[in-house]
Amino acid sequence: MQPSPFLGELVGTMILIVLGNGVVSNVVLKGTKGNSGGWIVITAGWGFAVMIGVFTANVFGSAAAHLNPAVTIGFAVLKNDYSLLASFIPAQLIGAFLGAVFVWLQYLPHWKATSDPGAKLACFATDPAIRKTGANFLSEFLATIMLIVGIVAIGYADSSNPEKGGIPPGVAPYLVGLLVWSIGLSLGGTTGYAINPVRDLGPRIAHAILPIDNKGSSDWGYGWIPVLAPLLGAAVAGFLMRMIAL
Amino acid sequence: MQPSPFLGELVGTMILIVLGNGVVSNVVLKGTKGNSGGWIVITAGWGFAVMIGVFTANVFGSAAAHLNPAVTIGFAVLKNDYSLLASFIPAQLIGAFLGAVFVWLQYLPHWKATSDPGAKLACFATDPAIRKTGANFLSEFLATIMLIVGIVAIGYADSSNPEKGGIPPGVAPYLVGLLVWSIGLSLGGTTGYAINPVRDLGPRIAHAILPIDNKGSSDWGYGWIPVLAPLLGAAVAGFLMRMIAL
Amino acid sequence: MQPSPFLGELVGTMILIVLGNGVVSNVVLKGTKGNSGGWIVITAGWGFAVMIGVFTANVFGSAAAHLNPAVTIGFAVLKNDYSLLASFIPAQLIGAFLGAVFVWLQYLPHWKATSDPGAKLACFATDPAIRKTGANFLSEFLATIMLIVGIVAIGYADSSNPEKGGIPPGVAPYLVGLLVWSIGLSLGGTTGYAINPVRDLGPRIAHAILPIDNKGSSDWGYGWIPVLAPLLGAAVAGFLMRMIAL
Amino acid sequence: MQPSPFLGELVGTMILIVLGNGVVSNVVLKGTKGNSGGWIVITAGWGFAVMIGVFTANVFGSAAAHLNPAVTIGFAVLKNDYSLLASFIPAQLIGAFLGAVFVWLQYLPHWKATSDPGAKLACFATDPAIRKTGANFLSEFLATIMLIVGIVAIGYADSSNPEKGGIPPGVAPYLVGLLVWSIGLSLGGTTGYAINPVRDLGPRIAHAILPIDNKGSSDWGYGWIPVLAPLLGAAVAGFLMRMIAL
Repeated sequence: MQPSPFLGELVGTMILIVLGNGVVSNVVLKGTKGNSGGWIVITAGWGFAVMIGVFTANVFGSAAAHLNPAVTIGFAVLKNDYSLLASFIPAQLIGAFLGAVFVWLQYLPHWKATSDPGAKLACFATDPAIRKTGANFLSEFLATIMLIVGIVAIGYADSSNPEKGGIPPGVAPYLVGLLVWSIGLSLGGTTGYAINPVRDLGPRIAHAILPIDNKGSSDWGYGWIPVLAPLLGAAVAGFLMRMIAL
Repeated sequence: MQPSPFLGELVGTMILIVLGNGVVSNVVLKGTKGNSGGWIVITAGWGFAVMIGVFTANVFGSAAAHLNPAVTIGFAVLKNDYSLLASFIPAQLIGAFLGAVFVWLQYLPHWKATSDPGAKLACFATDPAIRKTGANFLSEFLATIMLIVGIVAIGYADSSNPEKGGIPPGVAPYLVGLLVWSIGLSLGGTTGYAINPVRDLGPRIAHAILPIDNKGSSDWGYGWIPVLAPLLGAAVAGFLMRMIAL
Repeated sequence: MQPSPFLGELVGTMILIVLGNGVVSNVVLKGTKGNSGGWIVITAGWGFAVMIGVFTANVFGSAAAHLNPAVTIGFAVLKNDYSLLASFIPAQLIGAFLGAVFVWLQYLPHWKATSDPGAKLACFATDPAIRKTGANFLSEFLATIMLIVGIVAIGYADSSNPEKGGIPPGVAPYLVGLLVWSIGLSLGGTTGYAINPVRDLGPRIAHAILPIDNKGSSDWGYGWIPVLAPLLGAAVAGFLMRMIAL
Repeated sequence: MQPSPFLGELVGTMILIVLGNGVVSNVVLKGTKGNSGGWIVITAGWGFAVMIGVFTANVFGSAAAHLNPAVTIGFAVLKNDYSLLASFIPAQLIGAFLGAVFVWLQYLPHWKATSDPGAKLACFATDPAIRKTGANFLSEFLATIMLIVGIVAIGYADSSNPEKGGIPPGVAPYLVGLLVWSIGLSLGGTTGYAINPVRDLGPRIAHAILPIDNKGSSDWGYGWIPVLAPLLGAAVAGFLMRMIAL
């Protein structure tokens, strides 16, 4: 097996979901050691998940390490180059699905121990704090703009000081992880910050398929928002960043 | 649209407030996922907000990335060069106002869900834990001295090792973010550490203007303290640091 | 006394356990200042423990700084070179035992103050949230795969940019510490993430030997899982990473 | 005023106490915004306090930035060079005293609002969780050994890769801050980790002198332990590290 961009996106996104949905499971499921650990635990967990997902994507062959169709779309619009979409997005979706299966295995005894079906779905897909289609769409749209602008800004810091060699190897994935930690802390309170179509869709498919005790609905009625809103937000952000002619 | 120092200060300060006031909203408003997340959530959120605001200011054209009239005044006194004030401060104030509008949109369904007008104002402007004019002024004054001394000290670490190339690109904004996280943890318990005139004034104007359900007073009687005390503290700190003849 | 790989592994693993089991003791024992500090305290404490353990292992002579037989096995399989096992693993086990003795001394008045024998054992060895042999084994197995994949990925970031000099000195141990913080947050909720045979076995032996007031069972019936599952997970991960032909 | 080692140690230690005792005040005093913020807040606050204290000591003229007589003693024993003691230790003590005065001013309205004299003393000096002379001495002794070993290990990482330029400027103070965060999380649960004679003595003198409403005893009966135990621990650690012939 050779490293490749496809494999890198797949494995990197899988790790993102393993560690991201893993931390939600730890906080939300009954009887875990991290039960009720709070928002600092969830957001730190997702931030580190991004960082380690990026490192893993790199070693498995994706130097870009998008792990997120919104990032792929955002950069496609920014650079007016759509060539990566066809290979990256399927890899990301498969990876996200597999990551959810991993988390289901990791927390195997806790699905039965948890009675609330909503808590179990939260370990897979996002759910709005107050359900309102327009406002929820707006939240995901705005938070994804923040994500893309932040990633571009960190990339700029990497490239703008060539005489200093740019951000040292290993540090940029950390900073992107902190960006996601920050978005979670600050903007995640409304819809749970999917800001990534496959982060929501892949695990939601896994929720629908996997044999989970008393699992309840996969809530497909909401599922289109965390897919479409991040894609639109990313396209808008990519366009805005392209306007400032980096 | 070309990047420029004015645009950089405007967008960078907007992002600072998006992520800073965003985290307060997440912790304080009813029904959010971060509700009652605690002081660690608020202070981490503001620290990362500074870091990402700096990165964004850089990419939009402000290499200085002050995001704060107190920082602009502090460096003006330190360097005896007041040329940046006229362009930076209006940009910062506009950015802070726009950032507050963004947060209002992001948390749209939660304003009505929250009954306490004081909680809603806290998502815009600061409010002292114990209201006492002199003591509140002193708190903001001292905390801003700490901010300016800390920023100068980090800048010194960047410049004092030329043979090592200074702090690597990307790391200095992180350290300044940690400085603000630290000030929040340690000195923010009294007045909520505005330590930045526009961080308080811009969102307070937004609070006065925006249509927020049952919003109550914008508390203008307190609003002059987080404007004047940081400016005075920064000027004093700039003068003190100039005395040690860096 | 000369620094040597044996001494480095011994002292580094001791420090890992001093700071790792120390944070559990602080959160779990009665009357401590960190009592009930929560999962963020425990996982941050273990993450920093790894980082400082690595720095210490380096200065005492182990540049590899495995501190964990699973890491030693994982790299042995990855590189098809088993020469380090015979010296590293005994050093790690002795260090882990001594670290547990240090923690016992550090928290001396708190053993008697704590009535629950289970809480006291938790300051030494891991214990599953829901006891189920297969699921617990699977949790430790999967979490250790994550550990090895993450370490290899960080090492790849260090080596893949030779023109940039790799990850700067001091930063890689920090990133590995964050990896362990992340695994704790996300995957540690089931079995308490031993992911290291000696982290569990060394302190469990100490628990069996040390004079602890009303200490209860050392729970040897569970003790084989955090030894064997990490070793197997590491071997599988090492094999998988070898397949992608780095 | 010229920067000098004396001034650097004085101002750096003052900042250490401003931010360190500041975070305790925020968590412990009544009516503050960080009230009951928990152990993660206190330990993060002290960790960042060390980092910013080091940066400040550097800019004010102390490249060594010990901020702690135990560190000064530890390095003196390690290098068999006692020349810094006579100037560093008085500077550190004066700085610690002034830092406590700053915190008293910062939290001025909260002293009266807090009825418990023990809580007020905790904003100045340390206090054991369970008062037992021998065990308390041992805790401070062991925790200070950990501090010195950790600092030497981080310094080794800085110097052992000359071809890579050592730890980048700005990063080493961060790592030392994390070391202190870690010691707080893991070993601070018993005596509140003074691990620094002046961190305890300087503020305790301030507590005795300052006009604080209903302040109660300054607890001088305990005050010798956080002075002597760290000095002894540092000397032992310096001797041990010297033995391994770096």
